[in-house]
Amino acid sequence: MDLRMDAAELQVFLEREFPQVNNEYRIEALAPHSISVRLAVQNRHLRPGGTVSGPTMFALADVTVYLAVLAMIGPRALAVTTNCSIDFMRRPASGADLIAECKLLKLGRILAVGDVLIHSDGVAAPVARATLTYSIPPVGVETASPAGA
Amino acid sequence: MDLRMDAAELQVFLEREFPQVNNEYRIEALAPHSISVRLAVQNRHLRPGGTVSGPTMFALADVTVYLAVLAMIGPRALAVTTNCSIDFMRRPASGADLIAECKLLKLGRILAVGDVLIHSDGVAAPVARATLTYSIPPVGVETASPAGA
Amino acid sequence: MDLRMDAAELQVFLEREFPQVNNEYRIEALAPHSISVRLAVQNRHLRPGGTVSGPTMFALADVTVYLAVLAMIGPRALAVTTNCSIDFMRRPASGADLIAECKLLKLGRILAVGDVLIHSDGVAAPVARATLTYSIPPVGVETASPAGA
Amino acid sequence: MDLRMDAAELQVFLEREFPQVNNEYRIEALAPHSISVRLAVQNRHLRPGGTVSGPTMFALADVTVYLAVLAMIGPRALAVTTNCSIDFMRRPASGADLIAECKLLKLGRILAVGDVLIHSDGVAAPVARATLTYSIPPVGVETASPAGA
Repeated sequence: MDLRMDAAELQVFLEREFPQVNNEYRIEALAPHSISVRLAVQNRHLRPGGTVSGPTMFALADVTVYLAVLAMIGPRALAVTTNCSIDFMRRPASGADLIAECKLLKLGRILAVGDVLIHSDGVAAPVARATLTYSIPPVGVETASPAGA
Repeated sequence: MDLRMDAAELQVFLEREFPQVNNEYRIEALAPHSISVRLAVQNRHLRPGGTVSGPTMFALADVTVYLAVLAMIGPRALAVTTNCSIDFMRRPASGADLIAECKLLKLGRILAVGDVLIHSDGVAAPVARATLTYSIPPVGVETASPAGA
Repeated sequence: MDLRMDAAELQVFLEREFPQVNNEYRIEALAPHSISVRLAVQNRHLRPGGTVSGPTMFALADVTVYLAVLAMIGPRALAVTTNCSIDFMRRPASGADLIAECKLLKLGRILAVGDVLIHSDGVAAPVARATLTYSIPPVGVETASPAGA
Repeated sequence: MDLRMDAAELQVFLEREFPQVNNEYRIEALAPHSISVRLAVQNRHLRPGGTVSGPTMFALADVTVYLAVLAMIGPRALAVTTNCSIDFMRRPASGADLIAECKLLKLGRILAVGDVLIHSDGVAAPVARATLTYSIPPVGVETASPAGA
């Protein structure tokens, strides 16, 4: 199955539909069933102590799977998150961006499942992992809106 | 096991340690192993379409379990979230606050587990449920910092 | 929404469709969106040390939500488990049956979500909790078969 | 960090400690933080319809992470499963063994986290994925016993 949107189209879509987050997430790489997204960490993402907060990592995982799904099915979809399991395993490096690497494990007619590993830029060991399920609406629904943005 | 902090002490602690979120979360009820927290929904919590975003619900669940744990063990703790599973089941009501009801199912020496149901104020059916595990540090660690704030 | 099967009908259905497990699970109570199921613990459920194994508790949670769903939608359905999160919190009591209490939190057109608490018979503190999502097939599919049996 | 047990030692350990399952699980490959385990599917693993049951896949994921942890820390440990999230994504192929591939994402002092992908032998697309957390007891505890066996 081929991509229906390339990285530039996805980036434009994200900036148009979610203007409040458009300058934080950057698509680093895209292939069928696979995407890499960078979060440009800003002060508002930090918790006391200077590391990235849990909700910020959740949001990054959520938007990353959302973009991986849209790249495959096109911008028609009102895909919504139905489930997420997330493990926080290490403290993110201070002052470093986060990189989320997603693999779509399933892209069915009504459900998609994506795995995400998040690591600090320049550090191999993952700070978090997450799996998300998206419910995919029938063809014909035009507006897009993730739970995670 | 008794409470080590009452609702007023928890609220003060939250406002002091997490000034960026202090006017959003309000403790509605507190008992041993049980807490209810209100999120005063603001524009920045909404996604396109006007309902509360997934990361906002994740953050609410996270802070609710964190407060339930601190109420039992006192403010000494650097408790951190290690795992969360969350299900998004219904669209939150537009323009309504969210209420998170938490029950601590386990409060062990090193791990605590809390269940959370989130519903829109005035609507019984839950919009989301979550279970979170917190890792509890040994006695003597003084600073507090949830993954979720 | 009313029950489409009562406890006796569910028990007969279980024994007919899953003869290999029919004498282990017993429906203790049933109401709309709520069910209680007893596992008569046998030697084959135990791990070294004499407590009930993790897969046994998973299977109990799975069949409990499955029966809660069937009670509401009738025996027509080829419902399948799509997701489970489970927390093992305490060691089950030696020599005691397990009781699973399920609440259906959502019963949608295509997805159902059920929460389960498992405790040893006669002990209040839960040994495990689980949340399961079932995918519900369209009306007209006649055979039944859970992932968990 | 190096392996403390090789594949042959792990296999002997499994057969001695869990005689009831010893002829079902076979270690196919082992490296630091990585293991592959085959389940020789038998009739008792099947549900109506002839595919492998959910609890069987849960048990396979559980024992796979357990072996991956023991390979790194040695047979001293009473490691127990504290949490599992599992997604069932496709129907296993009829009559085929299952292969579980595990990567340890974290091996901390008190918690280990492993990711598992399960596929039918000879089929690339995964039938299930799981993430498990194990609680690791202090050095000195000698008996071993997973939640999953």
